Amino acid sequence: MQDVEFTVERGTLYMLQTRTGKRSGAAAVRIAVEMVDEGLIGETEALQRVPPEAIEQLMHPMVDPKAHVTVLAKGLPASPGAAAGQIVFEAMEAKEWAADGKAVILVRPETSPEDIQGMAAAKGILTSRGGMTSHAAVVARGMGKCCVAGAHDVLADPEKGTMTVEGRTLKRGDWITLDGTTGRVLDGQVKLVPPSMSGFFERFMQWADKHRRLGVRSNADTPLDAKRAREFGAQGIGLCRTEHMFFDAERIAWVRKMILAEDVEGRRAALSHLLPMQRSDFEGILEAMDGLPVTIRLLDPPLHEFLPHEPEQIAALAKDMGVSAEHLAETVESLREQNPMLGHRGCRLGISHPEITEMQAQAIFEAAVALARKGKHPIPEVMVPLVADVKELKNQADLVRRTAAAVFGKAKVTVPYLVGTMIELPRAALTADEIAEVAEFFSYGTNDLTQTTFGLSRDDAGKFLPLYVEQGLFPHDPFQVLDQRGVGKLVRLGIELGRGKRPDLHVGICGEHGGEPSSVGFCHSVGMDYVSCSPFRVPIARLAAAQAALRETGVEDRTAATV
Amino acid sequence: MQDVEFTVERGTLYMLQTRTGKRSGAAAVRIAVEMVDEGLIGETEALQRVPPEAIEQLMHPMVDPKAHVTVLAKGLPASPGAAAGQIVFEAMEAKEWAADGKAVILVRPETSPEDIQGMAAAKGILTSRGGMTSHAAVVARGMGKCCVAGAHDVLADPEKGTMTVEGRTLKRGDWITLDGTTGRVLDGQVKLVPPSMSGFFERFMQWADKHRRLGVRSNADTPLDAKRAREFGAQGIGLCRTEHMFFDAERIAWVRKMILAEDVEGRRAALSHLLPMQRSDFEGILEAMDGLPVTIRLLDPPLHEFLPHEPEQIAALAKDMGVSAEHLAETVESLREQNPMLGHRGCRLGISHPEITEMQAQAIFEAAVALARKGKHPIPEVMVPLVADVKELKNQADLVRRTAAAVFGKAKVTVPYLVGTMIELPRAALTADEIAEVAEFFSYGTNDLTQTTFGLSRDDAGKFLPLYVEQGLFPHDPFQVLDQRGVGKLVRLGIELGRGKRPDLHVGICGEHGGEPSSVGFCHSVGMDYVSCSPFRVPIARLAAAQAALRETGVEDRTAATV
Repeated sequence: MQDVEFTVERGTLYMLQTRTGKRSGAAAVRIAVEMVDEGLIGETEALQRVPPEAIEQLMHPMVDPKAHVTVLAKGLPASPGAAAGQIVFEAMEAKEWAADGKAVILVRPETSPEDIQGMAAAKGILTSRGGMTSHAAVVARGMGKCCVAGAHDVLADPEKGTMTVEGRTLKRGDWITLDGTTGRVLDGQVKLVPPSMSGFFERFMQWADKHRRLGVRSNADTPLDAKRAREFGAQGIGLCRTEHMFFDAERIAWVRKMILAEDVEGRRAALSHLLPMQRSDFEGILEAMDGLPVTIRLLDPPLHEFLPHEPEQIAALAKDMGVSAEHLAETVESLREQNPMLGHRGCRLGISHPEITEMQAQAIFEAAVALARKGKHPIPEVMVPLVADVKELKNQADLVRRTAAAVFGKAKVTVPYLVGTMIELPRAALTADEIAEVAEFFSYGTNDLTQTTFGLSRDDAGKFLPLYVEQGLFPHDPFQVLDQRGVGKLVRLGIELGRGKRPDLHVGICGEHGGEPSSVGFCHSVGMDYVSCSPFRVPIARLAAAQAALRETGVEDRTAATV
Repeated sequence: MQDVEFTVERGTLYMLQTRTGKRSGAAAVRIAVEMVDEGLIGETEALQRVPPEAIEQLMHPMVDPKAHVTVLAKGLPASPGAAAGQIVFEAMEAKEWAADGKAVILVRPETSPEDIQGMAAAKGILTSRGGMTSHAAVVARGMGKCCVAGAHDVLADPEKGTMTVEGRTLKRGDWITLDGTTGRVLDGQVKLVPPSMSGFFERFMQWADKHRRLGVRSNADTPLDAKRAREFGAQGIGLCRTEHMFFDAERIAWVRKMILAEDVEGRRAALSHLLPMQRSDFEGILEAMDGLPVTIRLLDPPLHEFLPHEPEQIAALAKDMGVSAEHLAETVESLREQNPMLGHRGCRLGISHPEITEMQAQAIFEAAVALARKGKHPIPEVMVPLVADVKELKNQADLVRRTAAAVFGKAKVTVPYLVGTMIELPRAALTADEIAEVAEFFSYGTNDLTQTTFGLSRDDAGKFLPLYVEQGLFPHDPFQVLDQRGVGKLVRLGIELGRGKRPDLHVGICGEHGGEPSSVGFCHSVGMDYVSCSPFRVPIARLAAAQAALRETGVEDRTAATV
């Protein structure tokens, strides 16, 4: 589509200038489809005329471009879309107000796993700290909820119930509007435009699916997410994080009892209460994805993430649990780590506490058996996290397979399944040939792989990474756009080594990069089987995968010229 | 040397059995040398008959094998040798008692950089927490002081001035003896055997030097260490950690003023007080190593390591510094990191605070100029830490070179120097070809490279690494013995890429592995130019390097058979 300036002077038509017209995502898709219908361009050309990022706009409410707005502050565009609501400062408050039918925006310095339910209840999330891959940003994107993160000028004071922005003070209940696509915090209740996944969009995405080679899966931790992901075209789940199921109020009590148990028997007793809950989660997810693969990651985070750290919270929890505050404080202290990212987590937990792996495997296979009995086709893929050496994987894989055999033997039903591993440590990529002797699939965890390859903590990089990007030391934030020269080299090496040993090795990616267009292109080029991303990014990944395939087959990429 | 059992029965001599005789390190060296003198074996055979670890025993006092001992507890053999002394629980106390001429053993839960002076004053160090590469262990080995670390049964209570071991309570001032070679904590004052670096040892080490190809340098942070390292045969300094110079009481005050300064001018003012102190350190070290290269690493640790973290300490320091406790607490909080190992440190500091790099470079080059004027031959090699991308190195290298030019221009004296980098992140090894375009040398920091390649924090691994080694998941603690299959692959790749771009690239190692025999063998096999280790490990590295060279030239390795 072109903007054309012309003038008619003394009967003569003068064409003054012409340029590619700016258009919304919806318009870009519609124009491309209509041009195909009019015979002006072909499908493959149409696919290359829409930048994948534009698709994002079709899937979320947006700020009405005609609305008059007052910008209160700017933060990072952490999760796209827009939302208007009344401000609250605590997750619990967000839940209560939402239950009363109010639209709320949750404002926090930063969020943590305990805030999940408040985040789910809110229309949008605003944080003053944290980057594009902070907890708030990642969770909001997964929920398809708009989020502005790291808005440093916003000073929230939960105790007073106020938030100050450049001298202006807003109180609990005041209205603001978040624009997560641009990172703006707007004053008052601004008019929004609803999302529009039109018939044009559906036809366009069908073309994309016809031309792509890469599979597109979704990351999803609940049956609801799984359903939504399937609606967006996901061909399976590439990452189901089981720990997200543990933060529910009833469940976390048992998780904590398990952590505080003095011995294996005590841990087993607590785990036996978690088993039916996990089983029902898995049943729901496997059912929502019936006939499609679901990659379930065993428990990954360090145990101290499930315990409070402040003295008052520890005292309150100790009272609830009927243990001494001193004992609880000692446990918290003994689990404290200097560098938790490099600590006692992932398969290291499953190796030192095999009863956790056993319970999770039992829940997975019992869920699969229950579905198979109902005539469903569950396809669980059990994924062992944070493997550095094949012996760690073998230890856990043996345990998973023994558990599967026991469940199937008892039920007299067998369900096909795979056991594989995350490749998220440099050493796993470097020794991928050895690991592929045991792993039936690889899933690249490029968030962690980026952290370790760069020696860069996602949680701490906010202090200097913006300066690095500004000064051109790094071309992008490597947590957003996959670093092909460094991290990508390990990814490529790992695939070559792995397939050298096991030619039919199934390989995917489940880091945040799985929904970023240039990274999807890279995944195509190194021969991955699929990418997995948050549900709302699935259509973007589908288009990016199609464009990568078209680039490869030599169809000229005109995207850049038409944006 | 053989133990032979025989008997004479009815006039007949019966040889019953024979086996290789156990012998001390001193005896092993003496036997090997005397057998050469007697023409029984050659030099190269002699070199292979002494295991490098045996050399360690020659350099430290040892517990008299004839003494009767009572073992109070067992810990890790963190730094070899033995020491008897009266127990104290605070670094300050150790310093005061030692000044009164007392022999003291410093007992701590764990040590931190503020304890350095107390550690230097003590005869030995005992900690109840931490592994073979904890602060106490690394510093003690550097000082050549005996240390037992991670003796979990020792419960020190500094406030009461007592330490409890399995029900027994010892008071401040009671005598114990540490055996750092075996990890034993012994009751009372046990008799020791003094070290014995005899004439046999000297001749033996000369043979080793004749046959090795690898250079052996030492890690040293003070002129005293540098002198000692040279006496032990070090051919230069491979790692001088400048931050260790900052913990002196007078200096740390200026470091803290620098950190708390509001702006660049404030930081420059504080740094100007540190400049003459750093210059005099560098002058001392370069002079001790006159004519030999000295690799000086720019500031590496995150700034919060220079600040206290407990509320009482913060309040006390705020009073001392004449700032509000609130302001100081806020600064401490703002510098707090989730994963400091992956945080704002190394060249990231030098990039965000170029004035620190500038001051350090100025101190180095002014020291070199002062020595050159006295007719000395200083050879400084400036090393940029924690580089992930060549652009970071270029940023810092340009600053160093500009500073050198300014200092030389003003002094009208020029000193040859190099600028290079640590290779301690996987990404640096993976992009070593790009990095070699700027770096004149590589020094492998295999401590950090092991941490990031495995995704394993040295500080936290103590909770599960012993289990891993016990269960055979890992053959060794990878912080002690270089992991050749994973980390080694990156080392090899980095050397190939680097030398492909710059054939004369000088390559060494400065991690703890530089003094571990099998790792020294690996460094030889990948074509490094030198290894660098703590002063007391220099003779071990010299012998290990000779053995590696002999193995390569096909002389059969009989070491294993004769130990």
